[in-house]
Amino acid sequence: MNPPFKVEALLFDVFGTVVDWRTSIIHELKTFADQEGLDRDWHAFADAWRAHYQPSMDEVRSGRRSWANLDTLHHESLLTVLDEFSISQVSDDQIEHLNTAWHRLEPWPDAVPGLARLRAIYTLATLSNGNVALLVNMAKRAGLPWDAVLGAEPAMAYKPLPEAYLKTVQFLGLETQQCMMVAAHNDDLVHASALGLRTAFVSRPTEHGPTQTKDLRATDDWDVVATSLTELAGIMGC
Amino acid sequence: MNPPFKVEALLFDVFGTVVDWRTSIIHELKTFADQEGLDRDWHAFADAWRAHYQPSMDEVRSGRRSWANLDTLHHESLLTVLDEFSISQVSDDQIEHLNTAWHRLEPWPDAVPGLARLRAIYTLATLSNGNVALLVNMAKRAGLPWDAVLGAEPAMAYKPLPEAYLKTVQFLGLETQQCMMVAAHNDDLVHASALGLRTAFVSRPTEHGPTQTKDLRATDDWDVVATSLTELAGIMGC
Repeated sequence: MNPPFKVEALLFDVFGTVVDWRTSIIHELKTFADQEGLDRDWHAFADAWRAHYQPSMDEVRSGRRSWANLDTLHHESLLTVLDEFSISQVSDDQIEHLNTAWHRLEPWPDAVPGLARLRAIYTLATLSNGNVALLVNMAKRAGLPWDAVLGAEPAMAYKPLPEAYLKTVQFLGLETQQCMMVAAHNDDLVHASALGLRTAFVSRPTEHGPTQTKDLRATDDWDVVATSLTELAGIMGC
Repeated sequence: MNPPFKVEALLFDVFGTVVDWRTSIIHELKTFADQEGLDRDWHAFADAWRAHYQPSMDEVRSGRRSWANLDTLHHESLLTVLDEFSISQVSDDQIEHLNTAWHRLEPWPDAVPGLARLRAIYTLATLSNGNVALLVNMAKRAGLPWDAVLGAEPAMAYKPLPEAYLKTVQFLGLETQQCMMVAAHNDDLVHASALGLRTAFVSRPTEHGPTQTKDLRATDDWDVVATSLTELAGIMGC
């Protein structure tokens, strides 16, 4: 099948779109709990940790604090959530290991085969708020075949600030209309589309667990709508 | 064989160390010449183009001009050299095609197999003065299996400024002593070593053609000395 339009590069949101962060984080928390003999609601812990995600980046986006990468923000949030869940006496090494759970997220089952097919035709780059080390370690472990690990950290701007998208496109030597943003989040595509990028929505209806209410389906007329990266590959002629 | 010391990441100079830029550029120039019916000394043209490399970056390093990536510097130098060789009536498309010859450089024969072996154990990143698009396009065409495309452009500093090395190490979430700089140029290793990186010299005695006089051998006691990336892989336990 011929692709419906021509682009050179596909830029991927990663958390939720490519990897199942919630299941992976809960698994790591439970492993920690078993070792330490702790009994908590680890689904709630994972959701509480993630609830700090946007507010922590807002401090940087707004300029109220200078650049801090996601490993740093995750670390600060983790300390807060450990406190909220009354977990103390955790060593620095344990905290570091828990924090790098975000480097060990598992891909959705369709991610590696879908990306491998897409890579035969397109340049594949991350356009994530994750920092470079997080994304490189994740890719190496999971076998995610990125051509370039880009996004918030090299751009020094968190999505959805325009600089995050525009600097990533510029690093690749391309124009916005030569790139397609791939995301499981409608708001990411709203911002990419406003800058002239093509858009692909990949639905991940269990990213936030079984009771997810947001982003269950495309809320705009995106260029492509798919339910997996393998379906996206087929639509894009790969 | 066990590696002689432990590092997490290998950071690669690219022009000359991984790819044979001079042979590739001469080949592209000759193809252009055949199409246009031009007769010039294309070895001299390639060397003249490359002779602008350090001076053009010096303008940026010194702060006399604001950031400009290597595609831009190559483009400006190309216009100058075309003029020096009395070549006019070249279209903008032809100039763009010639300029992106630097995106199409061929690897030395040992580069792809050597990198593939090294990648099984180490994180492999570029630490090149080439811009991201140049390095990504080169890697995709030649099959260079980088885990991350980093260096001067994401760091906003050309080697041998310390920021080029330090920012690359920082993007990978590592300390300098966890990284090894791999280069065919002793002066690159002098600067990397001064910042605490491990060093590997890979000799490329024909990088500058058959009459090369510089960098024929290691001039310091580098951590590793090899004649190819496959030999380096063996020494590093891969």
